Amino acid sequence: MLPDTGRHRELAGRAAALDAADPLRALRDRFLLPAGLVYLDGNSLGALPAAVPPAVEDAVRRQWGTSLIRSWNDHDWWRAPLRVGDAIGRLIGAAPGQTVAGDSTSIQIFNALSAAVRLRPGRPLLAVDPDHFPTDRYIAASFADAHGLEVRQLPPAELPGLLAAEGDRVAVAAYPPVDYRTGELHDMAGLTEAAHTAGALVLWDLCHAAGALPVELDALRVDFAVGCGYKYLSGGPGAPAFLYVARRHQADFEPILTGWTGHARPFEMTGPYEPAEGIARARIGTPPMLSLLALEAALTAFDGVDLAALRAKSLSVTGFFIDCADALLGEAFSVVTPRAPERRGSQVTLRHPDAYALVQALAAREVIGDMRAPDMLRFGVNALYVSHGDALRAVACLRDVVAEAAHRPYLAQARSTVT
Amino acid sequence: MLPDTGRHRELAGRAAALDAADPLRALRDRFLLPAGLVYLDGNSLGALPAAVPPAVEDAVRRQWGTSLIRSWNDHDWWRAPLRVGDAIGRLIGAAPGQTVAGDSTSIQIFNALSAAVRLRPGRPLLAVDPDHFPTDRYIAASFADAHGLEVRQLPPAELPGLLAAEGDRVAVAAYPPVDYRTGELHDMAGLTEAAHTAGALVLWDLCHAAGALPVELDALRVDFAVGCGYKYLSGGPGAPAFLYVARRHQADFEPILTGWTGHARPFEMTGPYEPAEGIARARIGTPPMLSLLALEAALTAFDGVDLAALRAKSLSVTGFFIDCADALLGEAFSVVTPRAPERRGSQVTLRHPDAYALVQALAAREVIGDMRAPDMLRFGVNALYVSHGDALRAVACLRDVVAEAAHRPYLAQARSTVT
Repeated sequence: MLPDTGRHRELAGRAAALDAADPLRALRDRFLLPAGLVYLDGNSLGALPAAVPPAVEDAVRRQWGTSLIRSWNDHDWWRAPLRVGDAIGRLIGAAPGQTVAGDSTSIQIFNALSAAVRLRPGRPLLAVDPDHFPTDRYIAASFADAHGLEVRQLPPAELPGLLAAEGDRVAVAAYPPVDYRTGELHDMAGLTEAAHTAGALVLWDLCHAAGALPVELDALRVDFAVGCGYKYLSGGPGAPAFLYVARRHQADFEPILTGWTGHARPFEMTGPYEPAEGIARARIGTPPMLSLLALEAALTAFDGVDLAALRAKSLSVTGFFIDCADALLGEAFSVVTPRAPERRGSQVTLRHPDAYALVQALAAREVIGDMRAPDMLRFGVNALYVSHGDALRAVACLRDVVAEAAHRPYLAQARSTVT
Repeated sequence: MLPDTGRHRELAGRAAALDAADPLRALRDRFLLPAGLVYLDGNSLGALPAAVPPAVEDAVRRQWGTSLIRSWNDHDWWRAPLRVGDAIGRLIGAAPGQTVAGDSTSIQIFNALSAAVRLRPGRPLLAVDPDHFPTDRYIAASFADAHGLEVRQLPPAELPGLLAAEGDRVAVAAYPPVDYRTGELHDMAGLTEAAHTAGALVLWDLCHAAGALPVELDALRVDFAVGCGYKYLSGGPGAPAFLYVARRHQADFEPILTGWTGHARPFEMTGPYEPAEGIARARIGTPPMLSLLALEAALTAFDGVDLAALRAKSLSVTGFFIDCADALLGEAFSVVTPRAPERRGSQVTLRHPDAYALVQALAAREVIGDMRAPDMLRFGVNALYVSHGDALRAVACLRDVVAEAAHRPYLAQARSTVT
């Protein structure tokens, strides 16, 4: 093995060559990243797309301020949830008319679950991932509790076993294709097929997949999917979530949260609820337009981007990140994320007992990652704006922090709030 | 009666005198209203407060764009739902720590209903207003259907009768204090007391009351209340809603929508859901921060405003509007809104068979109201920015439209989308 400086020099040469040959490198200019910052937390809050500030200013000053209430027609605010839904649909393999934007992931999961179990009466089980982002588990547990259903928490690898043994009792399997902690990519096609073979439905949570890698909802015959707008879609803090309902289920899609904007004739305002045709029935209340229009503008960062090329770059950067970690970091670190590209999402997770303090020390040196308790350092790669050079700088910075014990001041700090 | 020009001159004199003596007239400068526009649709979408554009630009460019994920701590995004909730609380008679901002009115109603019925087990009835904005009815019906409960739709005037006859079967009465169509103000104190006497809970929908008139949730011992952020609070299109949970109910507040931000230790991300202490447990998913921060900035338009003075001005303007209608409009119009000030919210509704076309013709002359099918013209008065002169101009314009049959081109138009 080369001495440290030699190893670093070799990696720097590779990074420079890879970045020079990167066909997507110009896409970074679609984001307003602070100079000198290495931002590897786009899996938590995506960076600011350059298209957003003028779009939001227009939405505030001209549309709201000048057109006022007339903007619901004149600027077509009314159809924005469907328009933005279709724009997201293009990134997740969904033909138009199957995706709606709005609310939060929690709400969308609740509504999808409520509709799914109505499509599978007499099946009392919901299968969920015990290691998934907790909002999904909390909502599933609460929903099941309120409706006399049972939640089975088991990892994706054990789902086929459950489906084989008692699949005729499973209404819906609600899973993420990407583990938000480790970055592991599960077999979305295989699990979907296993669920369908058992007569169950699938609900995929795409929070860490949409915009990060190609997803083929229609091709896989997925039933339902949800996701948030603020991670790889870069729609802004708390950007509206989305819900996909496969067209074949829409006529029977009867969620519990029946909002007035999902009504067949929302402005009659008389009589009982009658669902609109198609995906529009999945609309709930009045959407937060400023956040929704920011998301719409953000999605233009994907205009003309080949998702296969984006995936190739993502794997190149995460693979290179792992190479850097192998070369530069000591044995106190371990790489948690699968090394096999086909099993990797778009992040790299390292394990170290001082994860919290290390992430703080990195941030003080303008390298932004995040941590998940108790010991995982997460580095998200949005290939629209993260380069191989960023990956090297992050790992080298981590090596320096450890060498200089620069994280020591943070060891005693209380853990803080980072989503 | 004076001839028309004389009547108009007399009313113009009164308007000028009332506006000159208006102690709140300077508040109009807190809004960015287009020159020459009479905006009487603030009960549907409030005008743009001057504080909003710079706040949103700062949220986008500096907080999101530069601080990125760190803003959850550095700019205290994390506590924004509670901070904005308390700011709304000041306008609805709620001491701090009982109001949270987020989601839509539909979602907040659902969650409040779900928690209310758990506080009143064995009571199968939900009482709701058949004439209320439909989102409340749709959600109540769907919730009841999913939980084996029964919705009784009856007007506020008949609620005491139900409570007297079978009040021990009523879990919760969910009503608006203001009829969104007619502007009638119901007896919030009396209905709350009648519900409590029967052992039932109340859920008030303050969409057309918060920011429009003084509301005293704590003093009336209200149990729950919800409302939207985009009408009299002027928080922007689809601004987040709010939920009030009286402190005495918070320890037992167990809604169905249990989101991760309402967890006692949201960043541990292990184990089952454990609700946070206090109103924080009513948080659900990640809030749409751009819309939420716009709402926060908008609420500064109320800084230092005496709500009793605001109410006095609102009644003065709506009363004057009715006087103008009596004086200037023909018999084809009738005033629907109660003339007694104590029974009036902050709008005036007129009835006319050509309501839709008249509202369109008014808009073409820069007077913005709205209509509710089939025949109601609504004119909302946000006393922060609507003057007596505006009221006169609107009514005079309506008179002119009729006299000139300027609404005729709109008679055949399809009805359009206005929230």
